[in-house]
Amino acid sequence: IKPLSTHYGNRGMSLEKDINITNTYYLQTNRAVIHKKPTPVQIVDVHYPRRSAAVIKEAYFKQASTTDYNGIYRSKYIDFEAKETKNKTSFPLANIQDHQIKHMEAVLQHGGICFFIIRFAANDETFLYPAKYLLMDWKHHLKNGRKSIPYHRIQQNGVLIPFKFQARVDYLSVVDRLYFK
Amino acid sequence: IKPLSTHYGNRGMSLEKDINITNTYYLQTNRAVIHKKPTPVQIVDVHYPRRSAAVIKEAYFKQASTTDYNGIYRSKYIDFEAKETKNKTSFPLANIQDHQIKHMEAVLQHGGICFFIIRFAANDETFLYPAKYLLMDWKHHLKNGRKSIPYHRIQQNGVLIPFKFQARVDYLSVVDRLYFK
Ligand SMILES: [Mg+2]
Ligand SMILES: [Mg+2]
Repeated sequence: IKPLSTHYGNRGMSLEKDINITNTYYLQTNRAVIHKKPTPVQIVDVHYPRRSAAVIKEAYFKQASTTDYNGIYRSKYIDFEAKETKNKTSFPLANIQDHQIKHMEAVLQHGGICFFIIRFAANDETFLYPAKYLLMDWKHHLKNGRKSIPYHRIQQNGVLIPFKFQARVDYLSVVDRLYFK
Repeated sequence: IKPLSTHYGNRGMSLEKDINITNTYYLQTNRAVIHKKPTPVQIVDVHYPRRSAAVIKEAYFKQASTTDYNGIYRSKYIDFEAKETKNKTSFPLANIQDHQIKHMEAVLQHGGICFFIIRFAANDETFLYPAKYLLMDWKHHLKNGRKSIPYHRIQQNGVLIPFKFQARVDYLSVVDRLYFK
């Protein structure tokens, strides 16, 4: 599929922002209930000033134990991770955690819909890449030390996500085609 | 159902802790993939000291937009909120937010399993209370200003959750009975 020409309107916004806008639209139109999980934070010190809100004075970022987004669509559990890269020819596996892979395996095993949304920022292309391919790539990575997924593989096994005005990353149109036929 | 006598071992631990232990057990035994969502925090100021981890120096608690827990069980989306009360005769509605109610309505509409886990700490009883009853109670609350759900109603329409050594709040045994018959 070719992206709509309007998808260049996309440039400069972060993938996460685009997905959040899309999810709000899906929620408002009653299409799906999908939310970003909050950033996990280890809270160490909290102050409680009089007459005002509690202030967190010391906290640290924790590793996420799962993926970025989950929810329900067409009665199915849906779960995905969003990643953006500036690379043009491959998607680096370096910032995917082992426990995220385990989580994705478990979700597939239990019958959920699971995928990555990968944006190649340089050419402003955003792909839905099903978890089953990513799990295969991960195995290759463990076996051969390959550090990234070639762009052409994602282009071949993934599906380009169209840009729409309100659903800036209209991934559910791709989910419909891939998981509900 | 009568609680197991061993459920008194439960005393003194918080409900959330018990549920987290239970979820870890469910995950390890490959029974379900259910996680607590991180506490939502608005981060205002972060320091990046040399040679050590980023420190959040100012942040505030945000209202959760959904519920405490979600995940997948027997191919179904599952979503719930956990609340503990010291009251003996009723469960206060005061700390339930309007948008949490909206979220629960949407989850039910999309075919998900949705409920509250309510613990009456004084008598150490923990109930699974299906969302459909809570949504009815909420409507009464809006109409008549009723500020709480009577204990006997929760006892009647909810199901007591058994305590088990590894699954301290073994709510999936109740989910099996209520949602998969
Ligand atoms: Mg991400
Ligand atoms: Mg709670």
